[in-house]
Amino acid sequence: MKIVLTGNDLTVSDVWEIAVNGAQVEISPEAEAKLEAARKLVYELVDADVPVYGFNTGVGWNKDHKIAKEFFEDFNRKLIYCHSFGVEPEASEAEVRAMMAVRLNCLLLGYTGIQPAVARRYAELLNAGLHPVVPEKGSVGEGDLTPLAHIGLVMIGEGEANYKGRRMSSAEAHKLAGLDPVVLGPKDGLAIVSSSAFSAGEAALAIKELRELVDMGDIISCLSLEGFNGNTSPIEAGVMAARKMEGQAKSAERMREYLAGSDIYGTYPGKPVQDPLCFRGAAYINGSLRDALEYAQKYLFIQMNSTDDNPCLLLDERRIISNSNFETTTLATAIEMLSIVLSHVSRMSCYRMLRLVNPELTKLPRFLSHDGGQSHCFGTIQKCFASLDTEIRHLSNPCSVDYLSLSGSIEDHANNTPLVVQHLRQIVKNLQYIYGMELIHACQAIELRKRQGKFNLGKGTAAAYEAFRKELPLYTNDRPLAPDVKKAYEFVKSAALLRSVGEAR
Amino acid sequence: MKIVLTGNDLTVSDVWEIAVNGAQVEISPEAEAKLEAARKLVYELVDADVPVYGFNTGVGWNKDHKIAKEFFEDFNRKLIYCHSFGVEPEASEAEVRAMMAVRLNCLLLGYTGIQPAVARRYAELLNAGLHPVVPEKGSVGEGDLTPLAHIGLVMIGEGEANYKGRRMSSAEAHKLAGLDPVVLGPKDGLAIVSSSAFSAGEAALAIKELRELVDMGDIISCLSLEGFNGNTSPIEAGVMAARKMEGQAKSAERMREYLAGSDIYGTYPGKPVQDPLCFRGAAYINGSLRDALEYAQKYLFIQMNSTDDNPCLLLDERRIISNSNFETTTLATAIEMLSIVLSHVSRMSCYRMLRLVNPELTKLPRFLSHDGGQSHCFGTIQKCFASLDTEIRHLSNPCSVDYLSLSGSIEDHANNTPLVVQHLRQIVKNLQYIYGMELIHACQAIELRKRQGKFNLGKGTAAAYEAFRKELPLYTNDRPLAPDVKKAYEFVKSAALLRSVGEAR
Amino acid sequence: MKIVLTGNDLTVSDVWEIAVNGAQVEISPEAEAKLEAARKLVYELVDADVPVYGFNTGVGWNKDHKIAKEFFEDFNRKLIYCHSFGVEPEASEAEVRAMMAVRLNCLLLGYTGIQPAVARRYAELLNAGLHPVVPEKGSVGEGDLTPLAHIGLVMIGEGEANYKGRRMSSAEAHKLAGLDPVVLGPKDGLAIVSSSAFSAGEAALAIKELRELVDMGDIISCLSLEGFNGNTSPIEAGVMAARKMEGQAKSAERMREYLAGSDIYGTYPGKPVQDPLCFRGAAYINGSLRDALEYAQKYLFIQMNSTDDNPCLLLDERRIISNSNFETTTLATAIEMLSIVLSHVSRMSCYRMLRLVNPELTKLPRFLSHDGGQSHCFGTIQKCFASLDTEIRHLSNPCSVDYLSLSGSIEDHANNTPLVVQHLRQIVKNLQYIYGMELIHACQAIELRKRQGKFNLGKGTAAAYEAFRKELPLYTNDRPLAPDVKKAYEFVKSAALLRSVGEAR
Amino acid sequence: MKIVLTGNDLTVSDVWEIAVNGAQVEISPEAEAKLEAARKLVYELVDADVPVYGFNTGVGWNKDHKIAKEFFEDFNRKLIYCHSFGVEPEASEAEVRAMMAVRLNCLLLGYTGIQPAVARRYAELLNAGLHPVVPEKGSVGEGDLTPLAHIGLVMIGEGEANYKGRRMSSAEAHKLAGLDPVVLGPKDGLAIVSSSAFSAGEAALAIKELRELVDMGDIISCLSLEGFNGNTSPIEAGVMAARKMEGQAKSAERMREYLAGSDIYGTYPGKPVQDPLCFRGAAYINGSLRDALEYAQKYLFIQMNSTDDNPCLLLDERRIISNSNFETTTLATAIEMLSIVLSHVSRMSCYRMLRLVNPELTKLPRFLSHDGGQSHCFGTIQKCFASLDTEIRHLSNPCSVDYLSLSGSIEDHANNTPLVVQHLRQIVKNLQYIYGMELIHACQAIELRKRQGKFNLGKGTAAAYEAFRKELPLYTNDRPLAPDVKKAYEFVKSAALLRSVGEAR
Repeated sequence: MKIVLTGNDLTVSDVWEIAVNGAQVEISPEAEAKLEAARKLVYELVDADVPVYGFNTGVGWNKDHKIAKEFFEDFNRKLIYCHSFGVEPEASEAEVRAMMAVRLNCLLLGYTGIQPAVARRYAELLNAGLHPVVPEKGSVGEGDLTPLAHIGLVMIGEGEANYKGRRMSSAEAHKLAGLDPVVLGPKDGLAIVSSSAFSAGEAALAIKELRELVDMGDIISCLSLEGFNGNTSPIEAGVMAARKMEGQAKSAERMREYLAGSDIYGTYPGKPVQDPLCFRGAAYINGSLRDALEYAQKYLFIQMNSTDDNPCLLLDERRIISNSNFETTTLATAIEMLSIVLSHVSRMSCYRMLRLVNPELTKLPRFLSHDGGQSHCFGTIQKCFASLDTEIRHLSNPCSVDYLSLSGSIEDHANNTPLVVQHLRQIVKNLQYIYGMELIHACQAIELRKRQGKFNLGKGTAAAYEAFRKELPLYTNDRPLAPDVKKAYEFVKSAALLRSVGEAR
Repeated sequence: MKIVLTGNDLTVSDVWEIAVNGAQVEISPEAEAKLEAARKLVYELVDADVPVYGFNTGVGWNKDHKIAKEFFEDFNRKLIYCHSFGVEPEASEAEVRAMMAVRLNCLLLGYTGIQPAVARRYAELLNAGLHPVVPEKGSVGEGDLTPLAHIGLVMIGEGEANYKGRRMSSAEAHKLAGLDPVVLGPKDGLAIVSSSAFSAGEAALAIKELRELVDMGDIISCLSLEGFNGNTSPIEAGVMAARKMEGQAKSAERMREYLAGSDIYGTYPGKPVQDPLCFRGAAYINGSLRDALEYAQKYLFIQMNSTDDNPCLLLDERRIISNSNFETTTLATAIEMLSIVLSHVSRMSCYRMLRLVNPELTKLPRFLSHDGGQSHCFGTIQKCFASLDTEIRHLSNPCSVDYLSLSGSIEDHANNTPLVVQHLRQIVKNLQYIYGMELIHACQAIELRKRQGKFNLGKGTAAAYEAFRKELPLYTNDRPLAPDVKKAYEFVKSAALLRSVGEAR
Repeated sequence: MKIVLTGNDLTVSDVWEIAVNGAQVEISPEAEAKLEAARKLVYELVDADVPVYGFNTGVGWNKDHKIAKEFFEDFNRKLIYCHSFGVEPEASEAEVRAMMAVRLNCLLLGYTGIQPAVARRYAELLNAGLHPVVPEKGSVGEGDLTPLAHIGLVMIGEGEANYKGRRMSSAEAHKLAGLDPVVLGPKDGLAIVSSSAFSAGEAALAIKELRELVDMGDIISCLSLEGFNGNTSPIEAGVMAARKMEGQAKSAERMREYLAGSDIYGTYPGKPVQDPLCFRGAAYINGSLRDALEYAQKYLFIQMNSTDDNPCLLLDERRIISNSNFETTTLATAIEMLSIVLSHVSRMSCYRMLRLVNPELTKLPRFLSHDGGQSHCFGTIQKCFASLDTEIRHLSNPCSVDYLSLSGSIEDHANNTPLVVQHLRQIVKNLQYIYGMELIHACQAIELRKRQGKFNLGKGTAAAYEAFRKELPLYTNDRPLAPDVKKAYEFVKSAALLRSVGEAR
Repeated sequence: MKIVLTGNDLTVSDVWEIAVNGAQVEISPEAEAKLEAARKLVYELVDADVPVYGFNTGVGWNKDHKIAKEFFEDFNRKLIYCHSFGVEPEASEAEVRAMMAVRLNCLLLGYTGIQPAVARRYAELLNAGLHPVVPEKGSVGEGDLTPLAHIGLVMIGEGEANYKGRRMSSAEAHKLAGLDPVVLGPKDGLAIVSSSAFSAGEAALAIKELRELVDMGDIISCLSLEGFNGNTSPIEAGVMAARKMEGQAKSAERMREYLAGSDIYGTYPGKPVQDPLCFRGAAYINGSLRDALEYAQKYLFIQMNSTDDNPCLLLDERRIISNSNFETTTLATAIEMLSIVLSHVSRMSCYRMLRLVNPELTKLPRFLSHDGGQSHCFGTIQKCFASLDTEIRHLSNPCSVDYLSLSGSIEDHANNTPLVVQHLRQIVKNLQYIYGMELIHACQAIELRKRQGKFNLGKGTAAAYEAFRKELPLYTNDRPLAPDVKKAYEFVKSAALLRSVGEAR
């Protein structure tokens, strides 16, 4: 698979393909032309000798220092050096690929004036599988200079890289890959580091999984509702139309499809008019997640397909202009909102599990015990999902506005986008575990309900149930739970649930 | 002024007019017709004797209790009683008007089946100025049943009300206003309490002021930039086009208009290439506020113009359907994001003030002292805006997901929208103070800069500067600061700054 | 009542007496002597002309400015002026008295060198009932300069004051009280403002009420346990001895006393071995509150009885020494911990109420309905205590470390003690409401249980029950709940519950 | 090294020795006797057939199920199974040793009635180096049942273990170690899982490092102060005596010792009276950390040397009593306070670094550049420590009170102690990095200051400086910073700084 980068249309799915599945990349001819034109302009401006930030001046507080032409290489190398101070843990190779893909794509818009050879090198390294070692910590947003510098370090033949499954020096990796390290010229250092590609790349990975999770959430809610034998009135089309909220209407519509033909539409004597809110509101809160996700995705797409470089080279105007285009505060706060909504989604899932083990509500055995209540079964696992849910809640505490004024009163704003995104990544992981556990509960309830008498599932949920049961049989108290939990998590993470109902992202 | 309510097009400005400026309201004929049709259906359903939540059944855990026809009045009165447990402080009369206007508007969509006379009564009370006493605390979202019950209490002639500036019993107020209390029939109690009109009404008041604040923020940023004599490159159109972010592009465009003709476009020897981020990024963070505000407004508008009632009467289908349309989680989390963005906006303003008193950066006297640095002046006021900023930061901590499972495992979700909105209201107030203080700083800096030599302001900023200077002269250390701070706050709160540049919301 | 202040032994009860009950104050002769000796030293140091911060130099960033002798009055007046920038709301008169009492007491240690006449003036104003108007906001901790400056402003005859129930100018109030405003000399301005007396005074009021609440918590837990007819094994002495935790052992001991003679020690067929943790752990969590309270009280006592002035005059060494004794970070973080523990205490109380209305657990009518379950009763009030509990949780978010670097890089630490303390004050108020509601629940349950058959309460709880029942009869669904909630709150706030069992704080 | 466990006197240093340095353990004879006596009582109670929680009844909601004698083994094995649902990541072997040591020690008090052979097995596994694989997530506090169950799983010959550097099945590990798995009898399962040993063990490791960090903090503050050439007046003994705060007095005393003989006591023309608060308040905030640490240590010691088992076997009374002794809320909230104080400590360190690179304050080259300001040097590393500091701030958000009500309304309190402790562990690690960076800054400043002319360090600081300089030379912009940062971190983590001044913990 080969993905052509243009600077204008990189999607989260593309990033996932490149990062996780190792897709190759190619630069579009139009983009190549833009790179060349921009570089030409840079040299003309060097000759014109106008002071431009980070170009022929120092950076940060040192912006009043002038850099003479002959020191460009030295200046740019040292600029890479002194931004290379990242702290463990190291990003995975997939994460490094994601950030390289995003950085390359944004460079293609021609606003940086980077050497075309350096830009091309991102593609070459991606296609060769030569992955710089990048520590994750050290950026406050406002450009992820730290992690990106570690990529630059490897590009110039220093630092360490992973290549074909082995960690080695950059020099060795280059040799094995048949590449010479690059030599930096004016503005190259800044073009390498001055970007939020670390945040955007990691965000793309998280959002890709979240798009799957929100869709799987609708399926899982349906399975739990059938396990609970609850009410479908809250997802009726008429009710949704009256409310005018698009997100929840979409989730409700999907749920109606999955449940088509289910015995849940039947009734029985004494059936309560209304279920607990965790069931009744499932489509509504999944809908809130859709609303928030749409907002976050909009700004992530812009982030991956516009320039975040400072200064910005305007080809038409033949100027380099200082700016704050590295600001990612809308994206950071969008993700913070998304994290808060996810804490609602997670808690709803937990409550559904708590209700599913309550015989008073389900008419099923207490704790979904296969033997009618003698065994411990689902009584204790609650501590597991509850602790993961609490961690989600903690991770959803915002941190974007917590910053120090740096660099001699100059860098007096930050948004901590990298930390915000890493929190989201952990939230996604925890939710994958929690949804895995909800699947265990829902399918256990369904199986016990089927044993009580015929109970047909919906068209979609039947397929989902079968797929999950292939992975995991009924839990009967005769084995430790941990391996089941792990398997269910992997089932969710792989998005097998979507494929089971004939969907794929 | 008279505002016609239709159920479909109530804006935050309308709510402000009704709530704060005492505008009268009128129900549109189409809405009247819908109310009648819905009520007719209710009685037909009563005769059909189908169990419907809160209608001929109990509510919450008591949903399994059946209510016989002859007890409808008693049941609905007691339903009002036992939701009337609000806790101080009391909402202002403007706040009560806001929630009544919103509740009325949503009723007009015909999804509740309320007695038309009861719906009309909201309009009659608003137009008579008879305002129920409503305690603010006691709702967890998922319908603001508590505060709304206190309105119902007054409607049936109990509890207390404010009427023509005096607090009195509901009975007395009705007498003086020439009205008889209403008598409740089936579904009326639930229609009165089952709504988020308290949250939505308060949110409308906050959002109205925020819309003004975001626009004033652009003006204030310009004044500070002139006081600082900083750079305009970050707000150039070319830079904004390259970034593709709409919010920041709009703020930048507005700033360019205000600054047209300013001496700030001139340069001087040794002028730094770049300013501190609080100046450089002003349009960008104001833009992030625009982005978040647009999202929040979208969902607030839906909230004020759709049904949030449970159960929901569907005229076409001739049914009453249980649902979760009272869910306001998208709105609650949108406001939580808005609050986080506001903490960025506030901190940017604070940093601009900190930079404006730094002679190294401004070439103006330290602490903007009129006498060249001997006086204390603006050294100490920093503690004031810093403490308000810290409070904003604290208020922006989310709380929507912190809830208990109530009502016997049934109400196991909440979003605390009222608390979220009240936090926003306090944030708005603090920001009005902080912006007032920034105006004091910016104008002090401009005046001192003018004294150093001719310095022409932009077209818009000149007007703004003059308007503010009419309120407050140069600060010369010869008086306590508190009254100045209060005046500047009131100047901002009144939106006089917008009017000074020929804008009004 | 007259309280003699020595600088060494002011307690929270003393502060309460002075602040709330209007006790008079007197300065001890030893303290008078210290004040005189310190002032003498100040004048000798003035003559020696050594540069000392805020004494003959400016303050903050202006610390490099020298102040000549002849400008002392002017300098100190202006120092008061430009710290007088507090923001609404205004402190209550009780709060103003509390902070004045604490400030005076600390001055008596002789480390400030303030004019003895100025120190005495605090006592004179307190005894005359002349209370400066003090806005609450504007201090970041590190000395509550802002609110304290407003006291200084009134002392010099400016600003506004409350006197005998009326608000008036300071000048008028002085005239009516027969006092002349003071004239400030060297170091007086700083001695007036450089203190954390605002935080400490408010903290003293909060802690005084908390000491009562923790004791009442033991009684209320007992009443709820009897209403629940739960188990006493968790409070047995042997269990407590095995655990070695002092706080919980004390609460358990007290609970055993209150319950002496109760029918709760009896058993019945099918009685569960263990109760929900909100009952089982009541003494344990009340104990955690005791633990945290002891820690906070220790540091509050030091704060009220040591110097927090900078610079600090050392009589023995005959020097004035710059320092950071205004640091109150231990106290601020102790209160933040206390707030977190209170959020546990509050939640435990809420859960007890949720359990008390569950017939499956209590064998009492659902929602403690007097008529066997037909009425709404205690189903809806849950939203009220839950919303107050959520607010407590939000208020317990820490904010001490959220600060800006002020005053030209000099004031680069803060702890926001005033905001932290105000959060605690609101938490205390909410908990008083919540405990009020728990009393309503517990006594309702007890009364219904008594109706089921004889059920004798413990020695202490019987007295408490009777006292509360005198205030509030059984709730029978025939009235709005709000007035009951208010009464119960006032019962708790007045500590009547303690007096009912023969205890007083 | 062999550590004798008695149940009464296990210290954090002991835990560190056992966990990290592989010390062997031995059970004291008195403890052995207690174990035997308790077990004897258990069997007598089994015969007496009294219902006791988790002993001859089910656990949690299943507490109403009775367990017959002949099913003890099966019941206890399944109890282990269904608590074994932990989620990644896995605890390190050191962490597993820590929790085993703590669990064993508490068992020795004889309150559980565990089989002596099972208790002894903890010692045997520790001494053999057979370490169960334990996933870290899955406990909400209130007993760390999940992680501890994984130890039990290995004890009965199931699950996985690490043995001599290799991961293998429990069965294989037992075989290689020459041990037979244990067979569980009555109450053994609960005795294995019902404990907070996971939290306590991890806390012990964190507190051990914190004790070192607080002492190193005093040294580092001194080095920075010398680098800054600041004032010592704030740490004078007279000032500390006036304040009466023990923690800060101790830090100040230590700082005076380290600085004895330093040229910092000299003065120079124009030396400011006062330094920024990050220097002036260093001893004070380090002191606040001492205060909080003392509180936390007190309760951790109790936790490690008392029983946290439910039910609790009282030998004297010959009874098993249900209780809540697993409550660790005082400890959890103490650690939450500690984390908040650490966020202050961290921020102070960051500000000291920000001040040390400011030439206006230090008269040293901007950004401590060795070549007079041309190089980037310490301008960019600020993003690194700032981002770690922001993460600390986020980690210090409390989460103890965020929980769900589990197990059918029975487990309706939690404190999330494991998550709280893991946050502390990460905070400690980040602070070790930050302190490493402060050392880099301080020593760079000192070296540059020495180059400006003779500057003698204090007795203690000279030794510390030399020791650090042996690890890391002056930074001259000619290399990436990351390896330096890592080295400095390891220097701090190893506590080499303490040894350099002749101290060891």
